[in-house]
Amino acid sequence: MKHSRYDVGELKNVERVFLKEKIDLTGSEISINTLPKGSGFPFIHSHRENEEVYIILKGSGLVYLDGVETEVAEGTTIRISPEVKRGFMANDTDPMQFICIQSKVNSIDRVTREDGIRNKVKASWLK
Amino acid sequence: MKHSRYDVGELKNVERVFLKEKIDLTGSEISINTLPKGSGFPFIHSHRENEEVYIILKGSGLVYLDGVETEVAEGTTIRISPEVKRGFMANDTDPMQFICIQSKVNSIDRVTREDGIRNKVKASWLK
Repeated sequence: MKHSRYDVGELKNVERVFLKEKIDLTGSEISINTLPKGSGFPFIHSHRENEEVYIILKGSGLVYLDGVETEVAEGTTIRISPEVKRGFMANDTDPMQFICIQSKVNSIDRVTREDGIRNKVKASWLK
Repeated sequence: MKHSRYDVGELKNVERVFLKEKIDLTGSEISINTLPKGSGFPFIHSHRENEEVYIILKGSGLVYLDGVETEVAEGTTIRISPEVKRGFMANDTDPMQFICIQSKVNSIDRVTREDGIRNKVKASWLK
């Protein structure tokens, strides 16, 4: 399919959704997740060949990275190499919502201007 | 680097940030963008080899996909194949914020459980 769409609705109501199968992703797995206040990942994990990026959308808490714990909050973005042991926990006062993006390490060659093509067609707002 | 971090701060204040160089991404380019109310992409574009995923975080508006315009809103997620001509516009009443993820088509082999390794180490919340 040339494009695929899935509506998760208001983000505050999203507990956990994985998008790869819902929108036919071929270059990543993307999930939207909410940790209830005071709760954390049930175990620490690493990866074989995927890097992960976490973007905190709401709330605050802790990230565990190879034995070191650090505070995170809305707007924190972290890239984690496959072999790093990682986990997250929400603070005691609020749920913590984040987006997690998995992609294969060293898989992208060029981005944005180098990969993009400017088209001459006009959308309604460009006419 | 095994992991990299960048804090963009409260999302409502983010106009546009590209994360690839800030957190050393090797499998994707990720940006957080805000279209001011009533404004859209200044031109329609496609890509050479990257698929793009858009996740609307706030607001609502329109997406243009190969000549067809459709409404989008908070919680809309869309995967777009490289060759598709695309653009977005925010409605007249609110800014529209979204995350855009570029990754190379057909670049990921296995995800989540298949790529993950459960570690025995314990974070503070697991002890």
